[in-house]
Amino acid sequence: MIHSEELKKNPNLYLFLPIYYALWADSILTQAEQDTLNTLLKSQNWLSENELQFLQGYLDPKKDVRPKELKEWKSQIQTADIKKHHTLTDLGLDLVNKYSNGQKIELPEGALTAFHEAERQLGMINKEVNYIFQSEHKTVTGDLSREANFDISSMTAILEGHDAEVIRKVKAVIGSPDFKYPAKESLAQQRDDVYKLCQVLAEQGFGSWAFPKEYGGKGDMEGYFTIMETLSFHDLSMVIKFGVQFGLWGMSVFFLGTERHHKKYLKDIGTLKIPGCFAMTETNHGSNVKGIETTATYNHNNKTITIHTPHDKACKEYIGNAAIHGQMATVFAKLIIDGTDYGVSAFVVPIRTADGKAQPGVTIEDCGPKMGLNGVDNGKIWFDNVIIPAEDMLDKFAGIDENGEFTSPITSDNRRFFTMLGTLVGGRIGIPRSALSATKSGLTIALRYADGRRQFGPQSGEEVPILNYRLHQRRLIPPLATAYGLHFSLKYLTSRFLKKSEEDAQEIEALAAGLKAYTTWFTTSTLQECREACGGKGYLAENRIPDLKADTDVYTTFEGDNTVLMQLVAKNRLTEFKQEFHNMNLVTVFNYVAEKAKVNIVEKNPLAVRNTDEEHLLDFDFHMKAFTYREESILSSAAQRLKRLIEGGMDSFDAFNVSGHHMVNVGKAYIERIILEQFQAQVESTTDIKCQQVLRKLAQLFALYTIENNRGWYLEQGYMEGVKTKTIRKTVNQLCWELRKEAISLTDAFDIPDHCLAAKIAVND
Amino acid sequence: MIHSEELKKNPNLYLFLPIYYALWADSILTQAEQDTLNTLLKSQNWLSENELQFLQGYLDPKKDVRPKELKEWKSQIQTADIKKHHTLTDLGLDLVNKYSNGQKIELPEGALTAFHEAERQLGMINKEVNYIFQSEHKTVTGDLSREANFDISSMTAILEGHDAEVIRKVKAVIGSPDFKYPAKESLAQQRDDVYKLCQVLAEQGFGSWAFPKEYGGKGDMEGYFTIMETLSFHDLSMVIKFGVQFGLWGMSVFFLGTERHHKKYLKDIGTLKIPGCFAMTETNHGSNVKGIETTATYNHNNKTITIHTPHDKACKEYIGNAAIHGQMATVFAKLIIDGTDYGVSAFVVPIRTADGKAQPGVTIEDCGPKMGLNGVDNGKIWFDNVIIPAEDMLDKFAGIDENGEFTSPITSDNRRFFTMLGTLVGGRIGIPRSALSATKSGLTIALRYADGRRQFGPQSGEEVPILNYRLHQRRLIPPLATAYGLHFSLKYLTSRFLKKSEEDAQEIEALAAGLKAYTTWFTTSTLQECREACGGKGYLAENRIPDLKADTDVYTTFEGDNTVLMQLVAKNRLTEFKQEFHNMNLVTVFNYVAEKAKVNIVEKNPLAVRNTDEEHLLDFDFHMKAFTYREESILSSAAQRLKRLIEGGMDSFDAFNVSGHHMVNVGKAYIERIILEQFQAQVESTTDIKCQQVLRKLAQLFALYTIENNRGWYLEQGYMEGVKTKTIRKTVNQLCWELRKEAISLTDAFDIPDHCLAAKIAVND
Repeated sequence: MIHSEELKKNPNLYLFLPIYYALWADSILTQAEQDTLNTLLKSQNWLSENELQFLQGYLDPKKDVRPKELKEWKSQIQTADIKKHHTLTDLGLDLVNKYSNGQKIELPEGALTAFHEAERQLGMINKEVNYIFQSEHKTVTGDLSREANFDISSMTAILEGHDAEVIRKVKAVIGSPDFKYPAKESLAQQRDDVYKLCQVLAEQGFGSWAFPKEYGGKGDMEGYFTIMETLSFHDLSMVIKFGVQFGLWGMSVFFLGTERHHKKYLKDIGTLKIPGCFAMTETNHGSNVKGIETTATYNHNNKTITIHTPHDKACKEYIGNAAIHGQMATVFAKLIIDGTDYGVSAFVVPIRTADGKAQPGVTIEDCGPKMGLNGVDNGKIWFDNVIIPAEDMLDKFAGIDENGEFTSPITSDNRRFFTMLGTLVGGRIGIPRSALSATKSGLTIALRYADGRRQFGPQSGEEVPILNYRLHQRRLIPPLATAYGLHFSLKYLTSRFLKKSEEDAQEIEALAAGLKAYTTWFTTSTLQECREACGGKGYLAENRIPDLKADTDVYTTFEGDNTVLMQLVAKNRLTEFKQEFHNMNLVTVFNYVAEKAKVNIVEKNPLAVRNTDEEHLLDFDFHMKAFTYREESILSSAAQRLKRLIEGGMDSFDAFNVSGHHMVNVGKAYIERIILEQFQAQVESTTDIKCQQVLRKLAQLFALYTIENNRGWYLEQGYMEGVKTKTIRKTVNQLCWELRKEAISLTDAFDIPDHCLAAKIAVND
Repeated sequence: MIHSEELKKNPNLYLFLPIYYALWADSILTQAEQDTLNTLLKSQNWLSENELQFLQGYLDPKKDVRPKELKEWKSQIQTADIKKHHTLTDLGLDLVNKYSNGQKIELPEGALTAFHEAERQLGMINKEVNYIFQSEHKTVTGDLSREANFDISSMTAILEGHDAEVIRKVKAVIGSPDFKYPAKESLAQQRDDVYKLCQVLAEQGFGSWAFPKEYGGKGDMEGYFTIMETLSFHDLSMVIKFGVQFGLWGMSVFFLGTERHHKKYLKDIGTLKIPGCFAMTETNHGSNVKGIETTATYNHNNKTITIHTPHDKACKEYIGNAAIHGQMATVFAKLIIDGTDYGVSAFVVPIRTADGKAQPGVTIEDCGPKMGLNGVDNGKIWFDNVIIPAEDMLDKFAGIDENGEFTSPITSDNRRFFTMLGTLVGGRIGIPRSALSATKSGLTIALRYADGRRQFGPQSGEEVPILNYRLHQRRLIPPLATAYGLHFSLKYLTSRFLKKSEEDAQEIEALAAGLKAYTTWFTTSTLQECREACGGKGYLAENRIPDLKADTDVYTTFEGDNTVLMQLVAKNRLTEFKQEFHNMNLVTVFNYVAEKAKVNIVEKNPLAVRNTDEEHLLDFDFHMKAFTYREESILSSAAQRLKRLIEGGMDSFDAFNVSGHHMVNVGKAYIERIILEQFQAQVESTTDIKCQQVLRKLAQLFALYTIENNRGWYLEQGYMEGVKTKTIRKTVNQLCWELRKEAISLTDAFDIPDHCLAAKIAVND
């Protein structure tokens, strides 16, 4: 086009250059575009026939415009003062002026209007299109960056509370050179490495921390949970191996045994002198522990007990510490005396000699490689009539007296069993706290990466940090808010547990089970988001997300399958926590069900259903009402549904099955209300104003994001109208946008040591 | 209680025994329960003072009832004819009869009414409670089991279609002893194993299958995709290594090169004589390929090209085959001639000698261990002024002529770039087909396990297969339906691709990108469900789910990040596929946007919004209307929103960012409509009536499950009312329940060889 005779003859033709360039440079020349341009050309009656033909020639997409020529058009255009013009037509006019040596352009009336109309039809909207000729382009999206409006160490202090001292101790140990992550090679080496680390932790006294002082401990159960949580910034195989030894094996002896067992074993467990196992799960019985088939038969003649695996699939399975290191085990088995089955009790059984040989009658098989946690040596155990002294029955809840008769302070086999399991609820506190630490690591890695990683940007502008994209914010910032909420909720759970009494035992078990399930599901989904949000970098082992994901994946299964747990929580809610936790059957629920069905739930407020004021949407009180309404009405409708089904003649087991999905929602709604309650309470009690501000925003985001996720339900109920749920979605986006600035500082406040984080994309070498 | 004087004196007291047993055996004796019983006792004025005191004694939860005594109560009760009685009171009466030696019981009027009232209050609802005394208990849930109402091989034939022959060939090869899964040991060994398998596949002619016959191939692109898909029943590292060599490296030479490149390279690529790489992605530029920084500078003096990595983070990264085996690479770089940048082109560059040494100027680093796909040797590559002959530029779309001037049939750098990328769309067909095969493996394993695994059951009844639980069905059966729908959709995509013309190229690219994203997200979430649904068994390597999950996890990232892809799909939908795919900027969208905003979408039918007839809910036409309504109205509202924002003065880049979430939904809604369309078409064209019946049910489930997942949206729009979405949820449950019986046969129809599946929980040794 340029250099052509036509342009020289008539510089007015430059008017067309910007539009022609835009069409040729960026897009397929569609028929509609050709038509628009043709209409434009025909409206310009100042063009000569030659000029018209010349210009029409360029509307043929097959025309051989050479790439170099196109680049020259661009250079020509860039000689004009680009930024001054808001339309391509104006830009063209500027070029005409330039090339006509200041001669005034004379165009017939309406000629320019047709140009502007063509631009509009081509979608070349004002101020936008000429960015293709510019070398910079500022946008709101591009300008967003990190800010810290609160003091990070103050926030860390809020998170740590009175655990700070224990946390500091643990970090000092895991920061030592011994704890540098080794390369993962063989299974054997990984297990060996982890065992050695556990020995170091035992030497530091962390293993026995919860045990009484007379057995080498500090009698500090709260500290034990904090240790688990802090260790979980490091390798999770180490944490689980630690938990198996000191939490499961140690605590089972501590809680299910009596003084003679404590004297005999606790000290050596705490120092790792006796590595041991917690042998509850069997191949055929996982969630349904009550159905385990291993037998413990009392022998009157010599006051011994015979531990026996009745068939191949009644073996103990997934038992941590069993494949390589464990020398003893707390074995759960059905106690049989004189042919009568007294239900599940626990027994200390030697399984391996100190030099690593299986004890006579004990067969151990390695579970082999797993998705993760390969530093933990899980195994299967079979017992072939293994005889132990009767005194090695852990007899806090059930024993055998001098006359060989069964004794127990608890009459009912069921109740005894559930009480026994209830003492082990600590695992359902340690696991979610560990899971949350892993999630904090994942979020820290993914958010730091997202803050630094730039990809795409406005036309001719710089690439933008991916955390500035709303979609990316939506992936990572609501989970960040939930992580904060869960942190406070798990602290609350811990403190409830430490003050547990007989009256609130069932409630606390339900709370622990529900928070365990909720947290570990959250961990799985959040780490998945982190993986994807880091793209290929998230797939490389060097960035640790693969290990975090693989190691925590089984958290939704062990210490109770989440789906089963949530149904148990629901059952307990249906009986107002009056029924023993763990009981999957329903027989005596209906007392409550029958009553509950009559209770009216909170009234809907006809004004609130369509209230979209920002003040209202951000109001804690609105959030709590919405959560409570959901919790209570799901609970009530579940009760009514079960009642209706059973009164209609359905078997209660079938009724419960039909309502399974509903039950899980009863559990989730309860747990979400608890989290919100604890989150709001923390905000209200925070005295540092800057920290309070950002925590408030996080609590608002948690609340609204949760409501948004449940919006189908709220709309079905008529508790909200569409106009409100839509505004909530926008408010969630807006809160994410605002919190994006603080996001990095909020992860810094987790205060995860860089040598633990150890992801190349998140830590400077 | 029994053996006591009171009972002997007055056998009428046996009336209380069943109720007392039920209270003591199962639950905590709450205050409310004590109160109810006390009221009952006081109403029974036939009791003597002694008897009353005796009975009240048992209402003290602290009373020392020995476990053995409780068991004896039960034995006593079991002497009655349990099944005959529907209340505990009736059971008690039976016992009284028994122990009073046939003497008629004389009770005052109203005495029994009070008993029944107490039972009601205690929630011991009729027919349920006496299961605690029985030894079996049949339920609807327990009775459900596998049925096959269609011929499995006919269904396999429908799935395979005319690919059956190629599938048979591939299965014969991967079923050979060479292909037995080796134990995974070191990274080096895994890579070596996979390389050897690829050599076997090359020897069988699978590698060159798509290449023209003159270069050793069969010229059968469709067959190539089927090979990828079938291989994906086996190890996925092998599949990806195969895809890198023959799909990426081979196809890039084939599609971007011209005859001289084909002659020079294709045959040796197809036999794996030249292992090679596809070096596009750079550390700093993944999704934004257009921003890659590697340069290819033309040297006029000797007609060579210098390939150079300008800075450390402009290195090629994640390049498959690079770390160990690759000898050559298709390198994407910006072509510079005389200082002018002509955009991204592709060049064949030697990177390593046949004996494994890096070529001079080439630095290669291993990406190291990854989450999965560890049999693929990904690496980083840096080029330090590496010189290649100009003839090794792949010059189908861009070349350099005799005079050293840039030539191209496509004028615009943008359009050339997008056209070039467009030729590589095959990867976005191969990957989702591979992902779907992996998902089929996961579903087969998890469903077989769920069919056989029993856990929990009704009181005193047998344990029930976990697949009989509605919750478990909900986890696995809707994904099974979706897998079928995706199977037919990916076949459709393949056939569209094979018939691709210039007119529909953009549409097919959008379709491929959308189906790639949708399928791989589906794979990730489904395999996660499979893992959790198999509990601890799903975590063991021996059951293959860990590998399936870890290997496919990156499918959501490679061949285009899913989130980016879905936004591109949305952009293409917004321009009715008129704009080049891959273009993340928006300049010329508005033509369509402005028009589209005026278009009225389908009217809502005021009757349909609350229609809950089963016939209506299962109707294909209702499904399609709901999907289409969603697709069109989300698209239209996205267009209006962008228009409104930009006309309100927002930068288009910011506007697009603000609407990011909306954009992804535009893409998803489009893809979901496509899947439904293909699914329904398959049902309608299926002639085998039995197969058609079950396929119809699967298509209905896919449709309703998808609607249920989007119910928040439908309710917000007023397209459905709560009463309808609730009924849809129930219908989904019901379809899952019905399909549970066919589920195993439906996975059998995938016809995955047992030696490929190789999960201990799913395959008999």
